[in-house]
Amino acid sequence: METLKTHVVHGGTLRYLKHDSPTTGTPMTLSVFVPPGEGPFPVLIWLSGLTCTEDNFTTKAGAYAAAAEHGIIVVAPDTSPRGEGVADDDAWDLGQGAGFYVDATEAPWAKHFRMESYLTGELIALVDAAFPTTKVRGISGHSMGGHGALTLALNHPELFQSVSAFAPIASPTRCPWGEKALGAYLGDDQRAWARHDAARLIEAGTAHGVYDEILIDQGDADPFLAEQLKPELLVEAAKASGQKITLRMQPGYDHSYFFMASFIADHVAFHARRLKG
Amino acid sequence: METLKTHVVHGGTLRYLKHDSPTTGTPMTLSVFVPPGEGPFPVLIWLSGLTCTEDNFTTKAGAYAAAAEHGIIVVAPDTSPRGEGVADDDAWDLGQGAGFYVDATEAPWAKHFRMESYLTGELIALVDAAFPTTKVRGISGHSMGGHGALTLALNHPELFQSVSAFAPIASPTRCPWGEKALGAYLGDDQRAWARHDAARLIEAGTAHGVYDEILIDQGDADPFLAEQLKPELLVEAAKASGQKITLRMQPGYDHSYFFMASFIADHVAFHARRLKG
Repeated sequence: METLKTHVVHGGTLRYLKHDSPTTGTPMTLSVFVPPGEGPFPVLIWLSGLTCTEDNFTTKAGAYAAAAEHGIIVVAPDTSPRGEGVADDDAWDLGQGAGFYVDATEAPWAKHFRMESYLTGELIALVDAAFPTTKVRGISGHSMGGHGALTLALNHPELFQSVSAFAPIASPTRCPWGEKALGAYLGDDQRAWARHDAARLIEAGTAHGVYDEILIDQGDADPFLAEQLKPELLVEAAKASGQKITLRMQPGYDHSYFFMASFIADHVAFHARRLKG
Repeated sequence: METLKTHVVHGGTLRYLKHDSPTTGTPMTLSVFVPPGEGPFPVLIWLSGLTCTEDNFTTKAGAYAAAAEHGIIVVAPDTSPRGEGVADDDAWDLGQGAGFYVDATEAPWAKHFRMESYLTGELIALVDAAFPTTKVRGISGHSMGGHGALTLALNHPELFQSVSAFAPIASPTRCPWGEKALGAYLGDDQRAWARHDAARLIEAGTAHGVYDEILIDQGDADPFLAEQLKPELLVEAAKASGQKITLRMQPGYDHSYFFMASFIADHVAFHARRLKG
C-alpha cells in the first residue's frame, strides 16, 4: 500500500492509502487511523454511503477521539472502484460511488464492481498485514454503508465480532435505491438479491447467536427514512428470529454527517466493548 | 437572516445562514450552532483560514460536542465577501477566501473587503438580535483566522472576553502571506499595517490587562510554521509587555483540520471558563 498523506490526529496516526486491487482490477483508496499507545489493536471497518469516498467519514465524522480513547484502529475504504476505464452511470445512486458492497454479476459492472470480495477477501488481510491489529474486528457504516455493514457481518460471521449501523438501507429488495442497484448489479432474478438484504437475512436467522446485539441509530427527521431506509423491517425481522437489535430513533436528526458525528462515540464504545473483551 | 439549512447535531441546532450585508455590499454566509438547553448562552466566534468558507470549520472541526457540553453558541462566518461583482485574484492567498479580517483601503478591494467592520460592527449585533446570547463572547480561529481572532480581540477589547488561536499568522508584517495581503488591501505605507499585526500589538501593550491568558496551539510539523506563522514572535512580544500567552507546541501535528479537531475541545473549555464565570 502506498501512503498518500499522513496526519497526526487525537494522538494517533491517520493515513490515506492507495493500492492496486487484484479483486477490482483498479487502484483502491482508503484511510486507516491507528490510535496512540502500544498495539496490537482491534479494527473497526467503516463503510460509507452513496456518493462518498474514504474522505467523507475521515474528515467529517469525528470518530478518532473515541477511537484514540478506546484503542481502536479505524479503516474507511472507498465505496466503489473508480477510474476512467470503470463502468459508471449518470445517476448518483449507481456505479462509481455506489458499489452497494456486492459482487456484480451483470455487464458492464461485473468486471470491476466486486466490493464484497474486495472487502472480505482482500482488504481485511491487507490491513492485518500492514498494521498492528489483533485480527479481531467490527464493522459499521452509514446508509448504503449501513446495509453493507449488516449484510457483510451476517454473511461473514467468521470475520467480525461486532456490527452496528447508522441509518442503514434495511431491506434493499424493498426500496427504490436497492431495487435499482441490485437489479443492475445482480440481474432481474431476485433470488440472487436475498443475501444482500439485512432484514431478510436476520429474518432467516443468518448468523444467529454470533452477534449479541446490533446497534442501529436512525434520525427521525431523515428524509430517506420512510421510502428507502425502513428500519422497522429490521426490528420485525429480529423479533421473528430472536436476534437482539437496539434501534435508537434520534429525534430531529437527519441523514447528514452531523448525525453520525453526534453518535459515533457511542458506536466506537459499543464495538470496543465487544472487540477488547 | 435567511436560513439555508438546519441540522440537529449533538443535541443542539446548527444553521447555515445568509444575509445581505450593508458593510460589504454583498450577501454573506455563516453557520451558527445553538446548544441544547435553556439560554441565553455566551458566543464563540470562529474565524477560518485561507481558502475557507463557513463550511470547513462547521463540518470538519468537531467543535459542537464541546459546545453542547459547555453551553456555547458557535458562530463561523465566511472568510471574505464573494460573488461575481467582487474583486478577486488568481492566487489562493488574496481576494475571495482571503479577506484577512481587515477593512481594505486600496482599489479594487476597498469596495467590498471590509471584514473588520463586518465582524465587529455588523455580525455580532445580528447574532445577538437573532439568537439567545448573553452578549458575552470569545473569539478564536485558525491560521489567517488566528491572526483575525488575535487582532480583533486586541483592537476591540470591549467586544470580547476571551481569545485563543490555532496556528495563527503571528506577525503578518513579517511573513510573505501577510506582506502580500496587507500591501494589497492597505497599500505600501506600512504604518497602516501595524494594527493588524498581533505580535506588534501585544508588544505595544494593546488591550493590556483585558485577557488574563491567550491560548495558542501550534503543530510542530506544520509546513507553514517557520516562514509564515512564527508563534515565537508572540511569545517574545508577550514577554516584553507582560501579556500571558500559553503557546502549546503539539508534536507531530500539521496545519489541517485534523489538528484543530484534536484540540478544539480544549479551546471551547478555555473560552467557557472565561465566558460563563
